[in-house]
Amino acid sequence: MSSCIFCAIVAGTAPGRIVYSDDDVVGFLDIRPVTRGHTLLVPRVHSSGLDDLDPAVGAALFAAGQRVGSALKAGPMAADGVNLALNDGRAAFQTVFHTHLHVVPRHAGDKLSFAKGLVVRRDPDPDETADLVRASLEAAG
Amino acid sequence: MSSCIFCAIVAGTAPGRIVYSDDDVVGFLDIRPVTRGHTLLVPRVHSSGLDDLDPAVGAALFAAGQRVGSALKAGPMAADGVNLALNDGRAAFQTVFHTHLHVVPRHAGDKLSFAKGLVVRRDPDPDETADLVRASLEAAG
Repeated sequence: MSSCIFCAIVAGTAPGRIVYSDDDVVGFLDIRPVTRGHTLLVPRVHSSGLDDLDPAVGAALFAAGQRVGSALKAGPMAADGVNLALNDGRAAFQTVFHTHLHVVPRHAGDKLSFAKGLVVRRDPDPDETADLVRASLEAAG
Repeated sequence: MSSCIFCAIVAGTAPGRIVYSDDDVVGFLDIRPVTRGHTLLVPRVHSSGLDDLDPAVGAALFAAGQRVGSALKAGPMAADGVNLALNDGRAAFQTVFHTHLHVVPRHAGDKLSFAKGLVVRRDPDPDETADLVRASLEAAG
């Protein structure tokens, strides 16, 4: 039995607001979002980080990041930009040791709310946000 | 004639401390490093960001990031962790509009110098740093 929370979300045994899914990758809202719509993409197969991540799965992870990032800009989420980030190792701020790619939607002029988000990390209505992210991905097809 | 500085570095017509090269990707030191060894990986073929990046090239870019990141930890650079980041769009802090993946080596307890690095972004001896990054990649084979 795994004690990995992200494995449990992938398996459906722990709650998560799933917004994306393909053969290799599952995406769900970060419960401590830096900005609204902050999504985590995780490989279905467990790895702790860059050193034990299958490069083919890494490619699929990045492809999902590209797809989700573009959709968040094109769709009703209406992001003006996106940060993709993968933090590898405790020294690099990794806190959950299942490889994950952050997709952080950004809006023009959001620098201060982004900085605030780094500290506060709270979404007052994550269910509505999940719908918005899903709608953006559906619009992108 | 392209006015893209990263295309010029890839073509060898603008200076850059090249530390990595494969069929699809070139890596060089960021001239404004957040930490020592901060490397930028860029596709040889120009794209401005996620929307016009060929997904196959994106996969190669991420694969290079994984390889360089692991090497910086295993080799003489002796990083304890690595941040990979791709900033897409001006709203997301992108300043050069040729897709690039940041590889930022981190060391345990470097939080304050990392924060300082975000502001100061200066390496007193980039040539020595480039040698160290190259040696880390050579050690990784």
